[in-house]
Amino acid sequence: MALIVQKFGGTSVGSIDRIRNVARRCLATAAQGHQVVVIVSAMSGETNRLLKLAHEVTTLPEAREMDVIASTGEQVSAALTALAIQQEGGKARSLLGHQVKILTDGAFTKARIKTIEGSKIFSTLRKGMIAVVAGFQGVDEDGDITTLGRGGSDTTGVAVAAAIGADACEIFTDVDGVYTTDPSICSSARKIPKISYEEMLELASLGAKVLQIRSVEIAMKYNVPIHVRSSFSDAEGTWVTKEDKSLEDVVVTGVAYDKNEARVAITGVEDKPGIVAELFGAIAEKNISVDMIIQSPAASGDNRTDVAFTVLKTDLARAKPFIEEVSRTLGARAVRYDEDIVKVSIVGLGMRSHAGVAAKMFRILAQEGINISAISTSEIKISCLVADKYTELAVRALHQEFGLSEKR
Amino acid sequence: MALIVQKFGGTSVGSIDRIRNVARRCLATAAQGHQVVVIVSAMSGETNRLLKLAHEVTTLPEAREMDVIASTGEQVSAALTALAIQQEGGKARSLLGHQVKILTDGAFTKARIKTIEGSKIFSTLRKGMIAVVAGFQGVDEDGDITTLGRGGSDTTGVAVAAAIGADACEIFTDVDGVYTTDPSICSSARKIPKISYEEMLELASLGAKVLQIRSVEIAMKYNVPIHVRSSFSDAEGTWVTKEDKSLEDVVVTGVAYDKNEARVAITGVEDKPGIVAELFGAIAEKNISVDMIIQSPAASGDNRTDVAFTVLKTDLARAKPFIEEVSRTLGARAVRYDEDIVKVSIVGLGMRSHAGVAAKMFRILAQEGINISAISTSEIKISCLVADKYTELAVRALHQEFGLSEKR
Repeated sequence: MALIVQKFGGTSVGSIDRIRNVARRCLATAAQGHQVVVIVSAMSGETNRLLKLAHEVTTLPEAREMDVIASTGEQVSAALTALAIQQEGGKARSLLGHQVKILTDGAFTKARIKTIEGSKIFSTLRKGMIAVVAGFQGVDEDGDITTLGRGGSDTTGVAVAAAIGADACEIFTDVDGVYTTDPSICSSARKIPKISYEEMLELASLGAKVLQIRSVEIAMKYNVPIHVRSSFSDAEGTWVTKEDKSLEDVVVTGVAYDKNEARVAITGVEDKPGIVAELFGAIAEKNISVDMIIQSPAASGDNRTDVAFTVLKTDLARAKPFIEEVSRTLGARAVRYDEDIVKVSIVGLGMRSHAGVAAKMFRILAQEGINISAISTSEIKISCLVADKYTELAVRALHQEFGLSEKR
Repeated sequence: MALIVQKFGGTSVGSIDRIRNVARRCLATAAQGHQVVVIVSAMSGETNRLLKLAHEVTTLPEAREMDVIASTGEQVSAALTALAIQQEGGKARSLLGHQVKILTDGAFTKARIKTIEGSKIFSTLRKGMIAVVAGFQGVDEDGDITTLGRGGSDTTGVAVAAAIGADACEIFTDVDGVYTTDPSICSSARKIPKISYEEMLELASLGAKVLQIRSVEIAMKYNVPIHVRSSFSDAEGTWVTKEDKSLEDVVVTGVAYDKNEARVAITGVEDKPGIVAELFGAIAEKNISVDMIIQSPAASGDNRTDVAFTVLKTDLARAKPFIEEVSRTLGARAVRYDEDIVKVSIVGLGMRSHAGVAAKMFRILAQEGINISAISTSEIKISCLVADKYTELAVRALHQEFGLSEKR
């Protein structure tokens, strides 16, 4: 007998029929002799409907009250799921964030879980019931309702699994697993049967479509095996687990791309110690995240340098006036912005023990005539910034040349 | 400075515009220097929408889960009201049943309040905020969400007012007060400026349209003055308070009618001690409420009697087979049912000190040629059962002859 957490997203509980389907799946798992804890999101569209109501009242709704409103979506779907399980002949009980109790900090709309008490879940299971926990919500030390941010139900699922020492956390979604790359631009993309937490984190842009990245961090910290799989089939999906020897045999596990960043280039900055620190210190103060940073020694002998970096496109409008002000202070010659870029990355634990992976990546892109405008590397990931018109070409070439198209 | 509880029903918070209106009203009260606690129902139609969802999942949804679902209606409207107050420049905070904490018994869907902690409300008021409490909901000793039954937000309003020692509980509704009779059948009906708790309870069928009867019982027990008034005007409504001398000057305060009862007549029951007790004991066991009871000595000398009583029409179908079984056991000759009846009542504290009120009522009805098929009396109420085709005639005649049509 195992203790299994099963998390179902908004699409999986998007209608009464689908909720019935969820109930049957939970009962099938229970019928195999397992103890089952279910985590549900709000019915698809419901959270948006609720937030729209709040925005009709006021353009800038207070975060505390937003959470009171938004959390009702999961409250309703948890109770409906419990009713559906009862209707199918099972025993079930819904549990809310403040009942479980999922204690968070007080950062409304983006709270972080501090502790989870397991006792209410265990007492429900001991009565032979399936515990249906409302995802996305928690409660702070004042007893105020908090929510964990978009995709927060994944986090609830993994955190609950960690807290009660579950054997696995199954994440049911509308895709059937994590793929070697985006199947919509590369038809030879294949489902990855097993991937490490570290790789999953680095594949964020691929993985975020199926799994909230924060939940992977929690799973890694508490060593909770995650099984990402389809709500609509019984096929095995992708296991996300701690690394083992078998995973290192594969050099590259996946090819990801990210079109959400814009490139900022500041030219002719005076090349003296502390200038770069001043620039990025000031940017960080404005809460603008910077990803890739490249500083190139200027060709001319005038002791000036060029600095380029990427920021999220959604931050760019807010960042522009500020970047220009700092640039003037630093005596820069010009600031240029480029939004027509994509970051293409290869990820794999095997890179650590295989030399020449970066060189191979650059060669593959060069063979396709793709110019690289920035490079960044980590232990298990290499990213190149290229013109976004090359997205498909770059992804397909890397996917093919690193052997991901072959059946393993 | 007074401490005022203001309760707004579903129609009063039925749209974003109306919620804004509620917010302005609360702020106007606060601007007069009062401390304000607001109780809100769910937006009109929302509770039905939620219960329908549950009934789509299963025909007989478990009461516990129903309450988890239904309580979200008030949760959303409380937070929207708090946001609207903030939008209008005020400070406000929503509080849910489990936060306040409104402790109830565990009778899901029809829970009764046991205690209310005032501390969370007081700490909110101390911060200079308006406390917006979700009506209708509570929490039982296990931390499970309960609801108080239809109209439960009135009960929340009065019970919270009692718990925090409020100076008054204002019930805002879509009518502007309690009337001497139903204005839709008697055009000379007038708004009653002041009425006692006892009279309000006896006028249930009139009053239930504007005020949940259970809330009047609580108000009477804790001596909370209730002010029933319109959400859509500033006019004074009806004050429901403890009786005082001025109220006794009026013999009859109101004329009520109730079409919800059916008459059951059992003829030829053996007239010996204990038979009637057996009959009504057995009916009570089935949880069927009996209102008026008339036992008439049979005219013939065969030692048999006729027993008549009224039950709710909604209980009749369920009660019929059972009534017939008991009648057979008692050796009754026949059972007859009459659903075409109405109970017409006059209510007034003044009756206690004025003789001949009942006789006057019978005479008024007789003058109109209306036959009375049953009579019941209490200290401040006289009710007559008549054919329902006479409803308007009887109500108008009583209203006129007892002087209610005149301007006091």
